[in-house]
Amino acid sequence: MPETLAGYEPAAAAVLPAAVRDFVAGGSGAELTLHRNRAALDAITVTPRILGAVDQPKTTTKLLRTPCALPLAVAPMAYQKLLHPEGELLLAAAAAAAGVPYVISTLSSTPLEKIAAAAPSWFQLYWLRDRNLVGALIDRATEAGCHALMVTVDVPIMGQRLRDVRNGFALPPEVIAANLVDKYTEAHKTPGTGSAIAAHTALAFDPAFSWRDLEWIRRRTDLPLVLKGILDPRDALTALDAGADGLVVSNHGGRQFDGAPAAIDALSSVIDAVGNEMTVLLDSGIRSGADIVKALARGAHGVLVGRPLLWALALGVPADALTTLGRELRDAMLLAGCADLTAVADLITGRD
Amino acid sequence: MPETLAGYEPAAAAVLPAAVRDFVAGGSGAELTLHRNRAALDAITVTPRILGAVDQPKTTTKLLRTPCALPLAVAPMAYQKLLHPEGELLLAAAAAAAGVPYVISTLSSTPLEKIAAAAPSWFQLYWLRDRNLVGALIDRATEAGCHALMVTVDVPIMGQRLRDVRNGFALPPEVIAANLVDKYTEAHKTPGTGSAIAAHTALAFDPAFSWRDLEWIRRRTDLPLVLKGILDPRDALTALDAGADGLVVSNHGGRQFDGAPAAIDALSSVIDAVGNEMTVLLDSGIRSGADIVKALARGAHGVLVGRPLLWALALGVPADALTTLGRELRDAMLLAGCADLTAVADLITGRD
Amino acid sequence: MPETLAGYEPAAAAVLPAAVRDFVAGGSGAELTLHRNRAALDAITVTPRILGAVDQPKTTTKLLRTPCALPLAVAPMAYQKLLHPEGELLLAAAAAAAGVPYVISTLSSTPLEKIAAAAPSWFQLYWLRDRNLVGALIDRATEAGCHALMVTVDVPIMGQRLRDVRNGFALPPEVIAANLVDKYTEAHKTPGTGSAIAAHTALAFDPAFSWRDLEWIRRRTDLPLVLKGILDPRDALTALDAGADGLVVSNHGGRQFDGAPAAIDALSSVIDAVGNEMTVLLDSGIRSGADIVKALARGAHGVLVGRPLLWALALGVPADALTTLGRELRDAMLLAGCADLTAVADLITGRD
Amino acid sequence: MPETLAGYEPAAAAVLPAAVRDFVAGGSGAELTLHRNRAALDAITVTPRILGAVDQPKTTTKLLRTPCALPLAVAPMAYQKLLHPEGELLLAAAAAAAGVPYVISTLSSTPLEKIAAAAPSWFQLYWLRDRNLVGALIDRATEAGCHALMVTVDVPIMGQRLRDVRNGFALPPEVIAANLVDKYTEAHKTPGTGSAIAAHTALAFDPAFSWRDLEWIRRRTDLPLVLKGILDPRDALTALDAGADGLVVSNHGGRQFDGAPAAIDALSSVIDAVGNEMTVLLDSGIRSGADIVKALARGAHGVLVGRPLLWALALGVPADALTTLGRELRDAMLLAGCADLTAVADLITGRD
Repeated sequence: MPETLAGYEPAAAAVLPAAVRDFVAGGSGAELTLHRNRAALDAITVTPRILGAVDQPKTTTKLLRTPCALPLAVAPMAYQKLLHPEGELLLAAAAAAAGVPYVISTLSSTPLEKIAAAAPSWFQLYWLRDRNLVGALIDRATEAGCHALMVTVDVPIMGQRLRDVRNGFALPPEVIAANLVDKYTEAHKTPGTGSAIAAHTALAFDPAFSWRDLEWIRRRTDLPLVLKGILDPRDALTALDAGADGLVVSNHGGRQFDGAPAAIDALSSVIDAVGNEMTVLLDSGIRSGADIVKALARGAHGVLVGRPLLWALALGVPADALTTLGRELRDAMLLAGCADLTAVADLITGRD
Repeated sequence: MPETLAGYEPAAAAVLPAAVRDFVAGGSGAELTLHRNRAALDAITVTPRILGAVDQPKTTTKLLRTPCALPLAVAPMAYQKLLHPEGELLLAAAAAAAGVPYVISTLSSTPLEKIAAAAPSWFQLYWLRDRNLVGALIDRATEAGCHALMVTVDVPIMGQRLRDVRNGFALPPEVIAANLVDKYTEAHKTPGTGSAIAAHTALAFDPAFSWRDLEWIRRRTDLPLVLKGILDPRDALTALDAGADGLVVSNHGGRQFDGAPAAIDALSSVIDAVGNEMTVLLDSGIRSGADIVKALARGAHGVLVGRPLLWALALGVPADALTTLGRELRDAMLLAGCADLTAVADLITGRD
Repeated sequence: MPETLAGYEPAAAAVLPAAVRDFVAGGSGAELTLHRNRAALDAITVTPRILGAVDQPKTTTKLLRTPCALPLAVAPMAYQKLLHPEGELLLAAAAAAAGVPYVISTLSSTPLEKIAAAAPSWFQLYWLRDRNLVGALIDRATEAGCHALMVTVDVPIMGQRLRDVRNGFALPPEVIAANLVDKYTEAHKTPGTGSAIAAHTALAFDPAFSWRDLEWIRRRTDLPLVLKGILDPRDALTALDAGADGLVVSNHGGRQFDGAPAAIDALSSVIDAVGNEMTVLLDSGIRSGADIVKALARGAHGVLVGRPLLWALALGVPADALTTLGRELRDAMLLAGCADLTAVADLITGRD
Repeated sequence: MPETLAGYEPAAAAVLPAAVRDFVAGGSGAELTLHRNRAALDAITVTPRILGAVDQPKTTTKLLRTPCALPLAVAPMAYQKLLHPEGELLLAAAAAAAGVPYVISTLSSTPLEKIAAAAPSWFQLYWLRDRNLVGALIDRATEAGCHALMVTVDVPIMGQRLRDVRNGFALPPEVIAANLVDKYTEAHKTPGTGSAIAAHTALAFDPAFSWRDLEWIRRRTDLPLVLKGILDPRDALTALDAGADGLVVSNHGGRQFDGAPAAIDALSSVIDAVGNEMTVLLDSGIRSGADIVKALARGAHGVLVGRPLLWALALGVPADALTTLGRELRDAMLLAGCADLTAVADLITGRD
């Protein structure tokens, strides 16, 4: 078993088909933003405190009204059966065991109701051309007991993920978009030129997503509403006005606009704009407990963790990965002299 | 076919003679400025916007009174028959198909009239020792229907391009400076020590080009006048006073003064000086749609695209390359949440 | 014999078992902070002075009331018999010969009394769960004639040193924590999964070390009290209020919180806060006389030197290493035009 | 023949004994400052001007009352017969042909009088323990017609040049310190442990050189007096007060204090302090005409060129190297749009 959360990637890479590994690991374009996420997190420094009488650091918090044993949620990620036959259910069970929310993807390969029954969940929503389908998804998520609605706002189209294009990546027969059994589904399956995943997105997603559409969503649900994929503080302020409860500062793990800043570098201006009034989560690049400390010391209230949990899922042990991450976070807090997350937020940060 | 504009270079490198590849790819001196152009563009970040209701981004603009389907022109580049037997005519046809101006080089290997008949064109002018020839070129360009005159101001002599020197690069018999059939022409052809191209330049170009000479040009033509090769904002202001309509912020693709700043880094001070009163284009290093977004977000009104189109020309498919670039630009605008180029100009930029 | 202090590491690496070499060389986590220490010191510049009439630079100083021939002390380091059968006694004798204090580790593999008899010593204290043992250690150190008490404040738990974890590193039978023969001792010896050293620390150390505990220590001894492992200037001020006489700005050689700033980068704000009222030493990364000049020019009153002396101990020649370092310091002072350490403190510094 | 000044180094490396190559190429310590000199010059940008009507850039200037065809002098360098049997006489003749001053080293392997007869020369002085010898050298240089006295102030001892130490470098029998035939001479010749060059320096040089000694020199000669090896602006002001006419901002090519800033980075503060009142030359790292433009754009009045000319001397063609450098400078000035050196000083500079 890997000793660190970061250790799951090389371990999984050894057991996965190359095209699946590329689908998970890859970014868009020249992967400048993908690499920038890690370079920025590595370059950030956090100055530890001492003599804080810390024995058992308290990692609990509440994110969007959901109590969390750790300041994180499992990021929404499509098609988890690509990694493991049990897919979403195995990762959601791990989240439940770890006491953190699992964010169900619109593109989950297991029906959302089954996942929501397995773990405290939030539901992630893409803006689809079929408005009835969007409405139905919101209703289904609400009825299934999801605790929040996370609307992804940075995928008008899919970023050009050259690894998938060159691999001609398509979903295998046993993996489907389980929540979206409709006329577009077959597009995923058609190996041809380019990425079948991108072809499906182009067909199914509505790029013309607008603030007006968001108002429609806001009226449609009483669930806490969080926008995923915000980087510009002007948009953060508009989101606050539009009634959003939270934001995820994210560049989609370097998979959308290749040229976007590192999410951690965009965080501060968003926090300055709305940090006192909204829940702000940091996504894109988190690979360790120390990374969580960096994000929180820079003002985030919590983080999303994505790829490392897919690697652990591929190995069949996502619960172990979350256990490892929890230990890393507690160790980092101990070493940084922090009794709780408020103390983490008070740490001085720098940058190489 | 390459999936990206940047992909044409390796593809073309596989089919071109090494000396021609070097002539296109190389820079001057230690190639510090050549590499700096790319390093600077890679390091620039642009912060995307969201929920802008963007479906079909509008990429059209007007540059120097010329309507453009994309905010770019094909950079003036010499001797395009080195890359393909049809040379300038094939690339100009691609520009016409893409709806962007083609800038005819003084050193085109096809007579300017033939090119201007094939595409909406601007004419690029070098300042030659033979003043009658300069005047004749302006007259010919005007009569041929060129829509603007782009005067290159950064080639008093040719920068020392060591690849060409070491290759003893000379033009093959079938490639000529078609607009300049004069006493100097043979210099191009003489393989000897060093670069025959540089030898020709030393004979034919007048290094003592002055603001007074520019006034002479200004009086000579009513065409919009744009100076190519400006980096210092003091020169930008002088150019404005001298009646120029536009500027190209450029270090000649790293081929002239090796030590010049990256063009994209010099852009801001030029924009601050004259950006409201002149058309300012960015040249040197543009390799993708995301790069165009970066240039426009930093204040440029458009860009010149050079080497990538020569690589595509070598493969016989410059139109495909422009199609790819148009798609990259639209995708980048969609991903950055921009409905039009004004929105691009409003994006926040940063730098690693 | 290596010509430079830095040269002892490769020489020792050739004679040590890999696991011992890793135990000494390694850092925690991804070793970001370990590498940052060196990168920061390499990047710092110091501007030499001229014509200072310097012939024999005066390197003497007083640190925590202890006269020192060089502005340094031998850092406290555990289990020196891992490197050489004579262990601490050989290195302490070298310190005595060089005229610098030797800091006895709580985890020395030789009883502290024997070491203190061999060299002018300070005693380093870890905060153990067994409070009687802590008290006894303070009493023993005082009775043995130690001149200062250095309390390590950055090890509530041991940082995750992956090299040791992967090596399953445990102490060999002949190496013991000679000052701590108690119920936990055997933990060091048990090869199993992970680092036996870390297992021992987890059992024996009390992570809940507090400022109140420090007050208890302060009352318990009249020795000069110095806290090792401070990086945040707010903690420096609290330490001053708590009656500490000195501080060691240190990230434990990159072995504790991986994400901490380079010690040399954290130095200035600590100096600004308390530099006029406390003795401030710099630890973590010193590898040459020029490094000492850098630390002192940045405001430190002295430094701790650690790993290089262990490498020299492994070769059986720690006295040679201290001689080399003394020569390097004098040479650096001569080349920087400094007659004494006050002149070093007046040098202008920069950073690449 | 190399096409560039920088090209002489690899060409010479192929013909020189490794120990001589190392003696010329090496720096002190970890060679941090050696590499920093080049990294800093490469990182500096200079923004070209346009349309300056420049045809034949005027490179002439006057340095320390000496008319110079180029804004440079040949740096003082010891033992040039190591590179070529004719040694100093061949390089001095090249300087004379190029119209630039040749700086005779105290440690020249040819008597200073012979060199001064071959070229317009300055004399470089080390501060030796034998004060009569120092006085005699000043008198000899004056009588020989040297036009300036350049006093090296950054060699109280020799920096530890590890390449020489490891090579056990000693002078071959046919190379002597021709101006210093005295009791120390034999030290150069004794292969033993370490560098025989350093051993000689330790014996012959007086590290306790002081401002008072400089006053003695100032009174002793009416020649223009320039101090070589200044980096701190406070020393520059003292030098002005002491009656010096010029300064060389230099870190001795990275051969003395390893940790010093790049000379080009130290230049600005020295220029700010005394640039209007003294002649300030930049030494350390100049390898091209573009580098000279960078130095002058940063405020230097001229530069010293060292190692590249030794490489050319090793190939027997120092005159060609100076011709190449003159061409590079004129080309760089043309490309930067500068009619003369005053225009160069007006260029805008930046730094990556």
